Amino acid sequence: MGDPAVTPTAAAEPPSDAELQNLERYWRAANYLSVGQIYLMDNALLRRPLEVEDIKPRLLGHFGTSPGLNLVHAHLNRVIKARNLDTVCIWGPGHGGPAVLANSWLDGTYTETYPDVTRDGEGMARLFRQFSFPGGVPSHVAPETPGSIHEGGELGYSLSHAHGAAFDNPDLLSVCVIGDGESETGPLAASWHSNAFLDPVHDGAVLPILHLNGYKIANPTIPARLPESQLDELMRGYGYEPVHVTGDDPMTVHRDFALALDRCLDSIAEIQRTARAAGETERGKDAPGPRWPMIVLRTPKGWTGPKTVDGKPVEGTWRSHQVPLSNVRESAEHRRQLEEWLRSYRPEELFDDQGRPAAGLVDIAPQGTLRLGANPHANGGLLLRSLPLRPLEEFAVAVDKPGGSVNEPTRVLGGYLRQVMADTAERRDFRLVGPDETASNRLDAVYGASGKAWQEEIYDVDEHLSRHGRSMEILSEHTCQGWLEGYLLTGRHGLFSCYEAFVHIVDSMVNQHIKWLRTTRELPWRAPIASLNYLLTSHVWRQDHNGFSHQDPGFIGHVLNKSPEAVRVYLPPDTNTLLSTAEHCLASRDYVNVIVAGKQPGFDWLSLDEAREHCARGAGVWAWAGNETRDREPDVVLACAGDVPTLEILAAALLLRTYLPELSVRVVNVVDVARLMPEGEHPHGMPDAEFDALFTRDKPVIFGFHGYPWLVHRLAYRRAVHPHIHVRGYKERGTTTTPFDMVVANDLDRFRLVMDVIDRVPGLGVRAVEVRQQMEDKRLSHRAYVRTHGIDLPEVRDWSWQD
Amino acid sequence: MGDPAVTPTAAAEPPSDAELQNLERYWRAANYLSVGQIYLMDNALLRRPLEVEDIKPRLLGHFGTSPGLNLVHAHLNRVIKARNLDTVCIWGPGHGGPAVLANSWLDGTYTETYPDVTRDGEGMARLFRQFSFPGGVPSHVAPETPGSIHEGGELGYSLSHAHGAAFDNPDLLSVCVIGDGESETGPLAASWHSNAFLDPVHDGAVLPILHLNGYKIANPTIPARLPESQLDELMRGYGYEPVHVTGDDPMTVHRDFALALDRCLDSIAEIQRTARAAGETERGKDAPGPRWPMIVLRTPKGWTGPKTVDGKPVEGTWRSHQVPLSNVRESAEHRRQLEEWLRSYRPEELFDDQGRPAAGLVDIAPQGTLRLGANPHANGGLLLRSLPLRPLEEFAVAVDKPGGSVNEPTRVLGGYLRQVMADTAERRDFRLVGPDETASNRLDAVYGASGKAWQEEIYDVDEHLSRHGRSMEILSEHTCQGWLEGYLLTGRHGLFSCYEAFVHIVDSMVNQHIKWLRTTRELPWRAPIASLNYLLTSHVWRQDHNGFSHQDPGFIGHVLNKSPEAVRVYLPPDTNTLLSTAEHCLASRDYVNVIVAGKQPGFDWLSLDEAREHCARGAGVWAWAGNETRDREPDVVLACAGDVPTLEILAAALLLRTYLPELSVRVVNVVDVARLMPEGEHPHGMPDAEFDALFTRDKPVIFGFHGYPWLVHRLAYRRAVHPHIHVRGYKERGTTTTPFDMVVANDLDRFRLVMDVIDRVPGLGVRAVEVRQQMEDKRLSHRAYVRTHGIDLPEVRDWSWQD
Repeated sequence: MGDPAVTPTAAAEPPSDAELQNLERYWRAANYLSVGQIYLMDNALLRRPLEVEDIKPRLLGHFGTSPGLNLVHAHLNRVIKARNLDTVCIWGPGHGGPAVLANSWLDGTYTETYPDVTRDGEGMARLFRQFSFPGGVPSHVAPETPGSIHEGGELGYSLSHAHGAAFDNPDLLSVCVIGDGESETGPLAASWHSNAFLDPVHDGAVLPILHLNGYKIANPTIPARLPESQLDELMRGYGYEPVHVTGDDPMTVHRDFALALDRCLDSIAEIQRTARAAGETERGKDAPGPRWPMIVLRTPKGWTGPKTVDGKPVEGTWRSHQVPLSNVRESAEHRRQLEEWLRSYRPEELFDDQGRPAAGLVDIAPQGTLRLGANPHANGGLLLRSLPLRPLEEFAVAVDKPGGSVNEPTRVLGGYLRQVMADTAERRDFRLVGPDETASNRLDAVYGASGKAWQEEIYDVDEHLSRHGRSMEILSEHTCQGWLEGYLLTGRHGLFSCYEAFVHIVDSMVNQHIKWLRTTRELPWRAPIASLNYLLTSHVWRQDHNGFSHQDPGFIGHVLNKSPEAVRVYLPPDTNTLLSTAEHCLASRDYVNVIVAGKQPGFDWLSLDEAREHCARGAGVWAWAGNETRDREPDVVLACAGDVPTLEILAAALLLRTYLPELSVRVVNVVDVARLMPEGEHPHGMPDAEFDALFTRDKPVIFGFHGYPWLVHRLAYRRAVHPHIHVRGYKERGTTTTPFDMVVANDLDRFRLVMDVIDRVPGLGVRAVEVRQQMEDKRLSHRAYVRTHGIDLPEVRDWSWQD
Repeated sequence: MGDPAVTPTAAAEPPSDAELQNLERYWRAANYLSVGQIYLMDNALLRRPLEVEDIKPRLLGHFGTSPGLNLVHAHLNRVIKARNLDTVCIWGPGHGGPAVLANSWLDGTYTETYPDVTRDGEGMARLFRQFSFPGGVPSHVAPETPGSIHEGGELGYSLSHAHGAAFDNPDLLSVCVIGDGESETGPLAASWHSNAFLDPVHDGAVLPILHLNGYKIANPTIPARLPESQLDELMRGYGYEPVHVTGDDPMTVHRDFALALDRCLDSIAEIQRTARAAGETERGKDAPGPRWPMIVLRTPKGWTGPKTVDGKPVEGTWRSHQVPLSNVRESAEHRRQLEEWLRSYRPEELFDDQGRPAAGLVDIAPQGTLRLGANPHANGGLLLRSLPLRPLEEFAVAVDKPGGSVNEPTRVLGGYLRQVMADTAERRDFRLVGPDETASNRLDAVYGASGKAWQEEIYDVDEHLSRHGRSMEILSEHTCQGWLEGYLLTGRHGLFSCYEAFVHIVDSMVNQHIKWLRTTRELPWRAPIASLNYLLTSHVWRQDHNGFSHQDPGFIGHVLNKSPEAVRVYLPPDTNTLLSTAEHCLASRDYVNVIVAGKQPGFDWLSLDEAREHCARGAGVWAWAGNETRDREPDVVLACAGDVPTLEILAAALLLRTYLPELSVRVVNVVDVARLMPEGEHPHGMPDAEFDALFTRDKPVIFGFHGYPWLVHRLAYRRAVHPHIHVRGYKERGTTTTPFDMVVANDLDRFRLVMDVIDRVPGLGVRAVEVRQQMEDKRLSHRAYVRTHGIDLPEVRDWSWQD
């Protein structure tokens, strides 16, 4: 071990020796079960000598972190039972699946969830065999694991998940085990500051346990090698009061850790009591506010495993990260070591003749839903209540005729969200998160119902900060995402508003959440949870202040790569369609919904009723925008998806009616992007017959698209009309310039679209050639004008849509 | 302001009053120029009253952070000149573009780079007008900005960039201004620990300046609201010795900041002197090692701007983030305030009659390449030397016949990289970065030439840790990426090895780097830099230990969304093709190269010569794997890209030759994915004639693809044969299971591929129906076998390719 133990200052009565002996025995049982899962196909109880055939042919899993997780789990059992604590635990080192599965089997929750894995010798054998085995269960803590809301495969999100679980759950204790490897990641490092947002009155407590076992896959970890005084400063700098527990002698660590836990829980109770008595926590220069406790637990990696293998140190080193002993089928010596290792836990003391936990062993665990594997917060759908959503009529904008009025779509949505905030004031089960962009994204009306959560000092000049707010702003997309995931997974609702380009920061996080949802949809015991809703605004076409670095529409394509059961993408073109889309998403379950919408003033096209009908269909003809006659197919289809492309397509349609009135034009708008996909590829995929009726089978389709143009091709390549689809979208051309200059730079402007039509509709004649030249001239004069005056041509700037 | 000033303990002689006066005047000039850029179209020198027409019609930019950046720049000028320091500065709050542009104009570097923006009144007017104006320059610090290696649009990467610049540049001072907003991000939070990797002997120094102006876009920042003692603990916990400078009185801050800078630079010099005299820094329990200094600079946001606007506080609040005074054309009062604000800098003292900097003003700036805007490290291509690359013959594996031998591709590559490490031992201009996966990815041979960089304590049990190593491992993909970007941008070379799934963690970072490269390619004064090379391994098909959470092949599609000039994607199918690809990438410039390759033992298909030829073409027929005759087109094309799909396609080809020998089969392998794209869409895009010759125009193409199947469609949708292409790839089906079970789960297995051929080649008759059933039976028996035995069927496990 690195540094000597810093034993906690005893505050609570130390646990009795008998209690510690029980904990130790329980821990041994969990360790035995962890090793068994990694190694054994048969002979689970070791009632006979270990043979080659008892060993799995492929040894897959992670032992290194498991004994530490088992230690924490055993001790949590003790305090949950003693204090009647409603507790979830986030296992950051989620690759330690064997540990959490072992504990779930021990306390009976596993068998209740999966009745074929009985709590006896036969069930134990099944538990072992199924682990990381084809047709069995994953090697990590996963959706399949009872009591889990956190797949630890990708590291970095445990502490933000733990906070998400605690928000608005005042009686919940959210314990978070953070591996020292995970602690090196950016998302984890940022999320320590979540305590600046944790309201001791309305939120539960988060107890971080930084578990230093010293090594990652193959390297020492930074926090484990910092001088202990520096690590202590770091934790204090993060705002915590650290309690250090260090050791490798089991009974010493059991005693110290029990004391540490008691001390932390006492401290948490005191912080909450004080704050709740006062109604809130005063914080300022003279009142620095409470320091929440946390534990630094330093134990050897691969603790209780083989000390050396083939002459090399294993326990306490990176070599125990996965499988401390390899080639156990091939090597008799390794097999001997494995048997010795398994027998060192004295299984005969742990399990009875039938392989059930021995008498008294499981007495340390709590009962019923207090068990970590059975806590309903960890199967949040069980607790979920539908959001109270008022009729949209109260918020919709009046639209007498298409293009007759102008609104900022997200600002109107802000009014709707404000009402959701207001109507959940008592229930406290809705939160809005965002990286310091709520006001920029024009959703600030919500502050009227719930301010911005903030537990640090508040100055007179500040606006809307609140000790109890449910609007959350931190300049970390990772933390926003982690908070919201934790909040949703424990049965609440929310929305994440973000600049479109920078939501890519959470690409990898959303991958994991979608994988989680895809898996839980197949687990009947997992109740559906509220969808994760993104509102992406300040989008690619309107980054007037920021330019090229802030332009990227790729997130929708990223999400559409994932399991179609769980993903939805919407591009509402105006205010009422945004409202209708948002209402639908807020009421939905088990999806990731991505809504991209503008915040800038934009024309209203549809009344509320029209918007509802259009959104329900997901795509449809806007007859008022075209000029086709009923008796024949149009000459060209102008399709659009997204607010800016819709404006340009409508303008192009108007130009065509003016300049080439003989042309029959159909305008199709797509809100629900997955409708472009084939039936069978996505639940919203449109049947071919419907698609052909909408887009024709062989007419030119000029498609103005919000994102990268090839996304449309990737979705629609199987359609009959596909060879005739020509898409305009963002092609990485941009800077700080005017809105119209942006669409010109990317060939999405109305003039270019008219040229595209002329280039693709056959037999238009000489008149069309002249019109084409006029359009080209308009583009050129725009470019010259904007470079001189710094604003768009009045013709496009003050354009109004006329029916 | 929040807390009172903590003035630094004076170590150096305080600057004279005259010096401070000069600094203050220079600062005023930079502030004037910053405001002018945001607001003025004309009347740059304010030689007449401000009129409506002088004001830009759209006010776009960020003033809030600019005065602080100007302060730092002015003071850096002083110390660079006084101490003759080779310095780069990373401006984390890169939205403060006006500040860096102002300074560049003042010291002459801007005019040297862009001669039409002269250093006189006319040039000043041009500087103002072009800012954030159509056809002009971006509002942020950008590739276009002289002296910049960091586009600050997306926040979080300044400190890792600063470290990347400092590595292996022992004489360089890398100053890093970190905004307090940026400091909330995960990537930034993680990157403080970069000091655990900074070698005081071979690396330069990094001086972080955490600039607290208190507010983000619309919210207070966390670090600015922590009690100062807690912030101090946090910085110490990160391993720094903080020096605090706080104030809003300019002359006081000038004095304190000058003292703080001197103190820090003295401390840096002392650390380096000590370490370099000893050869390295001893660190252990009794020798905690040096604490590098850093500065916490606390000044008001929007400092020197309007104190109140329309009755609301602006200076010192979030309201000054962008444009403190809006509607200046419309509001006479705002116009009056703007004029007052501009005149408060007393431009008549700052610029002479011709609008040139007044006599003596620029004397505080250094000369030549010591100027921040002219330092060659900030245009790193100027310093770049080609890597010494040995002939591949020394590393290639012997391949007598296809499939006749087995190798671990990345392990062989490791030998090659080891030699690159060895051959750059003196030059020190090559680094390998990775998130604790170098050994897991089987590149550990490199440690033989250069160990793993590590400045914390080293234990006896550790292996390959080194105070001077150039292999770098931190469990933060963000930090790896940031380090490497900083290293490349300052003219060196490197490679990032990463698990394929988790490279998505840096999706948003690579977006920014590609945007940077795309822009610099169009700037003649920017010299080309070495490409950013990714080696993605432990890929989607072989996550035996980890399962679903670790499976995601989407990064290649993400990258292919970006500017084609700057992106390349390679899927080498075996060891020699990997070597050939890696050699090509290491010698290339200004690209992001993504190589996906396996680490597991795999068949060798091509000799080195064959590999070179194949990689040069990027795609080609593997005649030995098919059985077509010269006189007619094949009945079916089996195409493949990626190592696992290639194996399955080759096995399918062999099965077809065995079971349906009458079928004429062509096998095509694709290494360079962009070759699938049309000519004109990507520099590597294949002309249609070549594509048609390779894939035919109308025969069924069964394509086994490494990633998501629709990526092939998105790339190839314009090809004649496209309607006949059927792609198999990853479709989000996975868990911890066997390698062959993974391909079966995703319908990419050889049996399924044979069935696909049978389903798509017309006229095969009854024999084919029987074969199809046999294949289906094999799939089913595999599934049953693997679920019983936990390993793949011997038939596929021990499969060997026979010619």
